Amino acid sequence: MRLIVPLQGVVQGRGGLIWGSLIPCALFYFLQLYLKRRRPPSPSSNPPSPSQSFSDLQRSSSRSNLSTRGSIGRVRISSRASSIAKPNDSPYYVGLDKAKLDPYDRFGNPNGVIHLGLAENRLCFDLIEKWISENLSNLVMGINGGDLNISGIAGYQPFDGLIELRVAIADFMSRVTRRSVTFDPSQIVLMAGATPAIEMLSFCVADSGNALLVPTPYYPGFDRDIRWRTGVELIPVHCRSTDNFALNMTVLDQAFNQARKRVKVRGVLISNPTNPVGNVLPRETLCSVLDFAQEKNIHVICDEIFAGSVHGHEGFVSIAEVIEIENFDKSRVHIVYGLSKDLSIPGFRVGVLYSYNESVLAAARRLTRFTSISALAQRLLVSMLSDAKFIEEYMEINKQRMRNMYDLFVEGLELVGIRCAKSSAGFYCWADMSELISSYSEKGELELWDKLLNVSKINVTPGSACHCIEPGWFRCCFTMMTQEDIPVVIARIRRIAETSKSHS
Amino acid sequence: MRLIVPLQGVVQGRGGLIWGSLIPCALFYFLQLYLKRRRPPSPSSNPPSPSQSFSDLQRSSSRSNLSTRGSIGRVRISSRASSIAKPNDSPYYVGLDKAKLDPYDRFGNPNGVIHLGLAENRLCFDLIEKWISENLSNLVMGINGGDLNISGIAGYQPFDGLIELRVAIADFMSRVTRRSVTFDPSQIVLMAGATPAIEMLSFCVADSGNALLVPTPYYPGFDRDIRWRTGVELIPVHCRSTDNFALNMTVLDQAFNQARKRVKVRGVLISNPTNPVGNVLPRETLCSVLDFAQEKNIHVICDEIFAGSVHGHEGFVSIAEVIEIENFDKSRVHIVYGLSKDLSIPGFRVGVLYSYNESVLAAARRLTRFTSISALAQRLLVSMLSDAKFIEEYMEINKQRMRNMYDLFVEGLELVGIRCAKSSAGFYCWADMSELISSYSEKGELELWDKLLNVSKINVTPGSACHCIEPGWFRCCFTMMTQEDIPVVIARIRRIAETSKSHS
Repeated sequence: MRLIVPLQGVVQGRGGLIWGSLIPCALFYFLQLYLKRRRPPSPSSNPPSPSQSFSDLQRSSSRSNLSTRGSIGRVRISSRASSIAKPNDSPYYVGLDKAKLDPYDRFGNPNGVIHLGLAENRLCFDLIEKWISENLSNLVMGINGGDLNISGIAGYQPFDGLIELRVAIADFMSRVTRRSVTFDPSQIVLMAGATPAIEMLSFCVADSGNALLVPTPYYPGFDRDIRWRTGVELIPVHCRSTDNFALNMTVLDQAFNQARKRVKVRGVLISNPTNPVGNVLPRETLCSVLDFAQEKNIHVICDEIFAGSVHGHEGFVSIAEVIEIENFDKSRVHIVYGLSKDLSIPGFRVGVLYSYNESVLAAARRLTRFTSISALAQRLLVSMLSDAKFIEEYMEINKQRMRNMYDLFVEGLELVGIRCAKSSAGFYCWADMSELISSYSEKGELELWDKLLNVSKINVTPGSACHCIEPGWFRCCFTMMTQEDIPVVIARIRRIAETSKSHS
Repeated sequence: MRLIVPLQGVVQGRGGLIWGSLIPCALFYFLQLYLKRRRPPSPSSNPPSPSQSFSDLQRSSSRSNLSTRGSIGRVRISSRASSIAKPNDSPYYVGLDKAKLDPYDRFGNPNGVIHLGLAENRLCFDLIEKWISENLSNLVMGINGGDLNISGIAGYQPFDGLIELRVAIADFMSRVTRRSVTFDPSQIVLMAGATPAIEMLSFCVADSGNALLVPTPYYPGFDRDIRWRTGVELIPVHCRSTDNFALNMTVLDQAFNQARKRVKVRGVLISNPTNPVGNVLPRETLCSVLDFAQEKNIHVICDEIFAGSVHGHEGFVSIAEVIEIENFDKSRVHIVYGLSKDLSIPGFRVGVLYSYNESVLAAARRLTRFTSISALAQRLLVSMLSDAKFIEEYMEINKQRMRNMYDLFVEGLELVGIRCAKSSAGFYCWADMSELISSYSEKGELELWDKLLNVSKINVTPGSACHCIEPGWFRCCFTMMTQEDIPVVIARIRRIAETSKSHS
């Protein structure tokens, strides 16, 4: 069938040119006829002038006439706020809410929900507690042993973070990389958590309607952090269990080529160490991603929030180290960091945006007016991070405790036939429960998740919440538990496993 | 002349209908001819397939071939970030930067810039300092005199604020209104400053491209707070010195009618007490604005950040009180508050979004993931606000000191012939220096501002930065000074005044 469309003349020869003009002529004719019929009869009176309408307003809504109040329909909120206000849908957030309402306690609430759904590390709260107990009151004495520096705590501070804290954090970041790279405090922008740092970077590298490529499975919070306010789209780049969920460059390239047909791709967002899998990215992968970004002239955002939370034997390599050594264009590279994971203090709300791009830094510094950190918290952290002995001890003990918990938990899961992906970092393991699901599908996975949450009272994060393409994987955080909780968790899972297997 | 346009048939009779079809026919004909000429010749080769392009990529950017790196142009950042990253343009921010670089100190830097450009209250830092010195270490002991509640400080907390702090702030807000209204802690959403609260409310009531009406002169920060990320437009509603810059309802209505022709107006943003003028809004004005909003079915955002910083004899009336008494639809009313002004602790970053609209509250609570307050700061403030004796004493002394400084400063200005608008709240006075400007225009005003900043070394905020329609007005904050600084400021202004007058 031959299709004739407006502007046909551009595509075809002279005949098409005539058709391409007559067709819109006819279309306009019928459009006008249609609109004419639907049009309401024109009002005979003139529209009221502004002054008239105001006197009407004064009459109709004079305060003595209370009955008119509320006669107009309810006021509407913005459509973007409406969509954010909608009830939780992701199992990740449903689980968080449920775990908060009915938290397990060995003595107080032994039938409560055991929370393996939140990446919070409580293994070293005792160390942090001891340090704060011993040092908080020193803060009152001020830096030079004199009086409290009240204007430095109560008064306005630079929104993008105290210079003292930026220096201390740059040093801490360097320590995390075992001094293999130095970080420049002037490239650090501080804000109230890594969450605003992720959002701000997305805002800065991409306009609304643009897209970022994100290898899956990825942290379920990204969907909120990035999509909600920036309007940036996330395009999943699926990784497979056969590669231990490592990024495949061919798949990345295919995703880019597929996406660019309909949307402007402005960057790749990778996590290193990965979340939810817990791998550290090999130097080779970082180089490939940087090559790819350079070739496509796009950005690389690297979320290194778990950089100092490596419990395995593989060493963490920061993208900052790779670009220092190799001849990459740095201006497209941006790092997200924070103290919530590696120092176990999410309650302090300290996030780091680290960038090599002066324009991104300039915009980000200004945007911190919306997400600044309390000066009190900042000054306490300057002291804490400057206590080199404490920090060294903390990192050593934290690593030992994480490794111990990881080993115990993974062994426990193996006892009930659940295998975890090979991993060496993060507060979680990535467990393959595909043998326990009734059907090899997202539906089957969510049924198991629901059973785990509501029957076994264990909150874990299903892979589908992380956009994992293979059903049956679950993220289980082990750093909110004590060692004594592990047998309880394993026993609960064993019961589910036995029921599931007897049914199949 | 008779104009013939497409769709003419809708407007006119049958003759117009034919013309309205033939005209687009002709237009399409010529458009096609034009496009045909401009079209580049079609390429003879097929576009490369995805797999081809990836092998190209691998070749062209293999890491051994370092010379290709950086061959592609610099990566672009988003256009929205570019526009935010641009250098400061508003004299408000230029002045802030300048004052920070060369701050006046009576002994250390007597020729430095005296900072009257920032609404920070340092008059009662001694009281805050004393309280913190005496109570900070108690925090270590925990609420029940036991150990430090480490998980309550270091662990994840609700992003929208601790319930204890929301209760304490609701009580403080009620105290500020002299108990004439109670605030419900469940309608409070806490975040890192009033700045994100303003932004969040704008985001929630209006979509990008919508508008808010804002009486002028207004706080210069609104332009950044609201426009930068929400894409909401601010439409000035000009107030006049002849009304002591009070809001004129007829002008508001005219501005609404004018604006609605091209944009969707979603609300009115008022400040009470006003900033930069320093008036408290009369109950009547609040009622009129609420009537107006109800009539137009739009929102009212009321910025009450200076509610407890009244130094005059007129009492502050919260919009919360007005809607309780009268039969207004509450769901369109939202209040911005915070502790930065009334408790002189901007460094703590505590802002309050108070709303009667459940959907706005639901969206705002979720958006606090981007702008949460350090738990350490929150817990300290729970203690401080619960110390009723301290709070009462603080508010009493603060009011006395503000009134004293206001009186001294306004008297000083009068001595050099500068009159201030009648005001009773805020950390500033609104000074009429129109007699000192060389031409009655924004240019003349900015020339004087520049002379004050760079010759007299006094940083004040020119009215044009506040969108004031009358030139020659300046906001001068008096709460960053000590009493001893006033004669220095007045002497500096006197010199400028004498030069200006001798020139004219």
